[in-house]
Amino acid sequence: MNEKTLSPDLLRRMHAYWRAANYLSVGQIYLRDNPLLDEPLSREHIKHRLLGHWGTTTGLNFIYTHLNRAIVERDLDMIYVIGPGHGGPGLVAHTYLEGSYTEIYPHIERSAAGMRELFRQFSWPYGIPSHVAPETPGSIHEGGELGYSLSHAFGAAFDNPDLIVACVVGDGEAETGALATSWHSNKFLNPARDGAVLPILHLNGFKIANPTVLARLEPDELRDLMRGYGYEPHVVEGHEFEPMHQAFAATLDRCLDEIARIQAEARRGDAAQAKRPRWPMIVLRSPKGWTGPKEVDGKPVEGTWRSHQVPVATFENDDHVRILERWMQSYQPDELFDEQGRFREEFASLAPTGRRRMGMNPHANGGLLYTPLHMPHFHDFAEIVTTPGDHKAEATRVLGRFLREVMRRNMTSFRLFGPDETASNRLEAVYEASPKTWLGEYEAVDIDLAPDGRVMEMLSEHQCQGWLEGYLLTGRHGFFSCYEAFIHIIDSMFNQHAKWLKVTRQMAWRPPIASLNYLLSSHVWHQDHNGFSHQDPGFIDHVANKKSQIVRVYLPPDANCLLSVADHCLRSRHYVNVIVAGKQPDWQWLDMESAVRHCAAGAGIWEWAGRGGDDPDVVMACAGDAPTVEVLAAVMLLRDYVPDIRIRVVNVVDLMSLETPDEHPHGMDDDVFDDLFTRDRPVIFAFHGYPGIIHKLTYRRHNHDNIHVRGYKEEGTTTTALDMMVLNNMDRFQLALDVINRVPRFAGEREKAAQRYWSDIQRHKLYVSEHGQDLPEVRDWQWQPEA
Amino acid sequence: MNEKTLSPDLLRRMHAYWRAANYLSVGQIYLRDNPLLDEPLSREHIKHRLLGHWGTTTGLNFIYTHLNRAIVERDLDMIYVIGPGHGGPGLVAHTYLEGSYTEIYPHIERSAAGMRELFRQFSWPYGIPSHVAPETPGSIHEGGELGYSLSHAFGAAFDNPDLIVACVVGDGEAETGALATSWHSNKFLNPARDGAVLPILHLNGFKIANPTVLARLEPDELRDLMRGYGYEPHVVEGHEFEPMHQAFAATLDRCLDEIARIQAEARRGDAAQAKRPRWPMIVLRSPKGWTGPKEVDGKPVEGTWRSHQVPVATFENDDHVRILERWMQSYQPDELFDEQGRFREEFASLAPTGRRRMGMNPHANGGLLYTPLHMPHFHDFAEIVTTPGDHKAEATRVLGRFLREVMRRNMTSFRLFGPDETASNRLEAVYEASPKTWLGEYEAVDIDLAPDGRVMEMLSEHQCQGWLEGYLLTGRHGFFSCYEAFIHIIDSMFNQHAKWLKVTRQMAWRPPIASLNYLLSSHVWHQDHNGFSHQDPGFIDHVANKKSQIVRVYLPPDANCLLSVADHCLRSRHYVNVIVAGKQPDWQWLDMESAVRHCAAGAGIWEWAGRGGDDPDVVMACAGDAPTVEVLAAVMLLRDYVPDIRIRVVNVVDLMSLETPDEHPHGMDDDVFDDLFTRDRPVIFAFHGYPGIIHKLTYRRHNHDNIHVRGYKEEGTTTTALDMMVLNNMDRFQLALDVINRVPRFAGEREKAAQRYWSDIQRHKLYVSEHGQDLPEVRDWQWQPEA
Repeated sequence: MNEKTLSPDLLRRMHAYWRAANYLSVGQIYLRDNPLLDEPLSREHIKHRLLGHWGTTTGLNFIYTHLNRAIVERDLDMIYVIGPGHGGPGLVAHTYLEGSYTEIYPHIERSAAGMRELFRQFSWPYGIPSHVAPETPGSIHEGGELGYSLSHAFGAAFDNPDLIVACVVGDGEAETGALATSWHSNKFLNPARDGAVLPILHLNGFKIANPTVLARLEPDELRDLMRGYGYEPHVVEGHEFEPMHQAFAATLDRCLDEIARIQAEARRGDAAQAKRPRWPMIVLRSPKGWTGPKEVDGKPVEGTWRSHQVPVATFENDDHVRILERWMQSYQPDELFDEQGRFREEFASLAPTGRRRMGMNPHANGGLLYTPLHMPHFHDFAEIVTTPGDHKAEATRVLGRFLREVMRRNMTSFRLFGPDETASNRLEAVYEASPKTWLGEYEAVDIDLAPDGRVMEMLSEHQCQGWLEGYLLTGRHGFFSCYEAFIHIIDSMFNQHAKWLKVTRQMAWRPPIASLNYLLSSHVWHQDHNGFSHQDPGFIDHVANKKSQIVRVYLPPDANCLLSVADHCLRSRHYVNVIVAGKQPDWQWLDMESAVRHCAAGAGIWEWAGRGGDDPDVVMACAGDAPTVEVLAAVMLLRDYVPDIRIRVVNVVDLMSLETPDEHPHGMDDDVFDDLFTRDRPVIFAFHGYPGIIHKLTYRRHNHDNIHVRGYKEEGTTTTALDMMVLNNMDRFQLALDVINRVPRFAGEREKAAQRYWSDIQRHKLYVSEHGQDLPEVRDWQWQPEA
Repeated sequence: MNEKTLSPDLLRRMHAYWRAANYLSVGQIYLRDNPLLDEPLSREHIKHRLLGHWGTTTGLNFIYTHLNRAIVERDLDMIYVIGPGHGGPGLVAHTYLEGSYTEIYPHIERSAAGMRELFRQFSWPYGIPSHVAPETPGSIHEGGELGYSLSHAFGAAFDNPDLIVACVVGDGEAETGALATSWHSNKFLNPARDGAVLPILHLNGFKIANPTVLARLEPDELRDLMRGYGYEPHVVEGHEFEPMHQAFAATLDRCLDEIARIQAEARRGDAAQAKRPRWPMIVLRSPKGWTGPKEVDGKPVEGTWRSHQVPVATFENDDHVRILERWMQSYQPDELFDEQGRFREEFASLAPTGRRRMGMNPHANGGLLYTPLHMPHFHDFAEIVTTPGDHKAEATRVLGRFLREVMRRNMTSFRLFGPDETASNRLEAVYEASPKTWLGEYEAVDIDLAPDGRVMEMLSEHQCQGWLEGYLLTGRHGFFSCYEAFIHIIDSMFNQHAKWLKVTRQMAWRPPIASLNYLLSSHVWHQDHNGFSHQDPGFIDHVANKKSQIVRVYLPPDANCLLSVADHCLRSRHYVNVIVAGKQPDWQWLDMESAVRHCAAGAGIWEWAGRGGDDPDVVMACAGDAPTVEVLAAVMLLRDYVPDIRIRVVNVVDLMSLETPDEHPHGMDDDVFDDLFTRDRPVIFAFHGYPGIIHKLTYRRHNHDNIHVRGYKEEGTTTTALDMMVLNNMDRFQLALDVINRVPRFAGEREKAAQRYWSDIQRHKLYVSEHGQDLPEVRDWQWQPEA
């Protein structure tokens, strides 16, 4: 190994650069004043609340310094994804040193006053968060919940052939499930078409309070693990400054050379023929809290978990003030900054310039690169509906054809993501535009796979979500289809992305990115091959807790509504859109024009389905494809049971339209709500998900005491479609009974209705038990308009 | 390799046993009649709806047959955890063949009639689910959502030194995050104290529609990966029956010998000195849909993804009927079953007997082994509270001392789980009873680690949850402490466990197991070192969607209430208990006796905090420790602002008590609710979580229109405790303003109150901005009873 990659002068300057970043990091954590230590440090200069995470910070700073050298020497287009992103002060320090920070936040000047402000604002109310956050220039990755750095990095690299994503994986983070599987992302990265990811596994050995698993493996085991994941590991280990600088520089050069070689070789050929190479990666083993206090109160700190947050936590003891001062002075700030507090040009000149600075790279601010999708006309894919309910179709299959055309028109900026479920969810028409990405070995029986495919399938919802987030955050577009029940696997990732969107929505310098679009199919009401474990519509509730400016939930009742909603979602920016739609053949209700109108309104009266005009006895509301069928079937039963009944049918597509406008931008005004749901008539509401959310969304409405919701109440198994409804009391017989029970003028009918209900249910159970399928009248049911 | 482990006769009989299991598996998927093919197969014998997953089934059957041999020969105590558990028919078949099934379900006789019923019930309404499910004897692992098999297996093995858990990991499942990190469980298994896990990675090559990542690695890469995870892989590969039987038998013997050697060696010494060995594991590479049709309609089926569900899916075509018949006849059922449909003794005698049968092993039915914890008196750990609010304490630290004693009294049946957060959540007193388990390398700075520790910490919520589930499902006890925001990482695992509890609650042969207890700390209102990413109280909402018989949510306002609640939860069975409690020093309200009374009631009036007796102007309700402080502070403000105000303070510990009794067993009667919350007075409710759930729980109550909820509305960052309240409009100033605005007789005060509010908020903001900490009056605030 050439340990003299860096000339003595360059080494000296790089080391100074690193010291400067470390100095500014300590300053942010500790100081509210006296930023340049112009006077002896005293308690008044120190913040009251000491918040932040020192342990990982200097390692991150070390890497940043070295990446800068490589960017400059090789003119690289590089971003930096930081798994241990609670090391926030480091990234703020570096982007400040390179000038990005001041360009974005001009009030943080490159001066002593600016440095004071820089220190003060960190983890300070109305200042900046303690983590690498949306507020941090150059970041696409919040450093809060751990585990998603590599997925984000790969997502950023897809379709960005000239981009290199340096990705630090913390050894704590590496223990998470999401991270552990994300190493396999290399089976989905095409060296001819995509950019590169350089993983840097940072072993600093400790978490909050424990050693890390990977740091305590035998070196051979760790090497085997990384090779098993398909990488060639390059180890840099130590704590002495000069050898570590030389070793890391040499290793980084070697890895970048190898990446260049791999890419050059792959790009001599066709991306469609590309093979998976063995990509390089770096293992950096350095002390936790490196360069920090070796000991505090007689206990070892540097190189232990005691460095995780703040190595010196209290300052009642004057010794502690001295420790902090000596620690800060150890970076020799006088040598680094001039009297005005400006970083000396001798060192500052090491940084890349302009958009090559990692703090200003536009890939880390995807809204800058966002261009709208080239959209086909969704009307061209319409299901022909002559009269409501004239035929069945598979809604998601219709959507698949539309997505195929979206794919064809956006072959470098749109991808479809799904955990092995694209075909199961009936979207396979997209394969006509592009197959699934696969850089693994091939067998003769394989179909719809190609090294340059654009459909991303790995059996990990975490990976799909992480890749998609990385892809969106760098300015592109995507669509994630998933089994409804298992989308909960990424509840937590959704949370973090929604939080990112919420915060960046208020930041002018981060323009909006494309929305994150979910299609939840194979939903609770159609789970034939599976059972109870596959039945959970609760993601809607989970999403609805997030900021209303960010979240949208759609329940299109048929294929044309699904097309209209999907078109809208793909054009939207900076939202999370959740679309729930079944894949089974089901009845089609609205022609395209009606569907567009209906979806735009969010909810509406289906005049053709109701009877009796403006003065209904009852409102039968529905949201979701399966409940819509049940409501219409109940309407037909009721026409028979109580022939003079007046029924209004209301269908809700846009769930958030039920809220008031002050709660959600899509919320309908009270008078619109009253026009749909009346002020005083019973509302029997058949809902796709758990019923409670309808009450939660409507509790402020005039008529809310009259709203009676049926929905999923956590009953299920492997059974027929109608039986699932019966188990949850949302079947047509129950809904008809509910109506008769709730309409005062049918009080006299109740006893008879109850008897009829029980006999219908018995008949259903006997038939299903005997034949294993639903009653013929249910299987053959079709909507009949009134004569 | 000795390829003649099995004598020709044993081989013949084992092969027959396997064929029998396969025959019964096909029969379950396809037949409703003619189970023994006594007459030519015709369409009427075939089910209308063909549901199930063939692809993985025969491999699972193959393994089961071989495990049986090992159990008999070595008298092993073994259970079988099946990751690809959608291969449900295989496990049903095997437990039927060994007799377990009929013992548990006597109506499924071991006869032709029983076999007909066995076939018919599978994936049939009111029958059994298609997956390995709670209904399946011998299972602790639902085969629905993938990824948790290895964690469950290790959880089962902990503290069960004589148990061997054979765990099949599917190659689809292996792509999930949870599974990918769960291989590292071997760093937490003590060979002297715990049982063994034998992972069997089953590479059948395909998922629903794609090849699998691990099956398409180079053999060297896969070996490296398994060695990197710390295992010694033993590969069995092929498709010819005889060589595969011999190879698998020999390999299984080798692995079991190695396990025995490892255990014997470790057990010669002290468990406290045990080292991590390199455990053996098996890689079984066999065709997907092995023994099934090679081709259907000219397309290859065996060995491809087309075998995933049902290889022949339609029977309009008579050829398909013939394919099915030939396929079933290929197992030679006449040779396997006698005329009465009984499995011939020649083969049946290969199975283990009694509780050695994997279908009857009590470890797979943990309720049988359940014994209550030896509980210390929680009163002994009480915080001394002389008058309400007389001092501050860290509630979770108090709890930690109680848990220490629980640990001490149950040193083989209780463990504490947490993702690197036990100390951060202030529970470190437990280390005095037992440190953290660590079988990795040690360094001098390590503390509170030991190979025989009982606190399980890995930075993976998935692992903690999976281990704990496995531990509980095999009859033991545990407690999981987690940062509140990140518990969402296991939302989906919680779903599946709650579903398991719901189903098994109705099964007499599965007695109840210990509850799954969560402590959510480091909660939304106290996230100093972190920020927005760490702020999410939504797990409560997620849990509340599950069956009310199963879920409980507690928000103890202080340490004594926390003790009382924790004691109750640890004694309870078959629930999921969620406890939310802060770790920061905070005010203590109730002495132990009052706390016990209050927690038993679930909610109650705090007379000492209110004023004005039975006729309040307003009810101020609170749930959660931080909101309780704010409400009491608001009461003090209001005594000053409107001296004649009559206030009732209601504190809610047991969130589900707010529901009606027909919705939740803890729900209070309407008259009790009215007694607390009145029928007509405004209720200002300060809630720990998202406000909507309070409306959802109370929308049926008389006074619900008057309930005005403040809670977390998704605003946050790194800031002070009061500022978090201000951001979310739940601060004391806001609550006081709310009261004045809602009480009609104070209408004249509103303008003044609004002005005061704005000036208070301004004062707060200025101070916080300047000093980085809360107003002195807030920091120094203490509850004052009225003079």
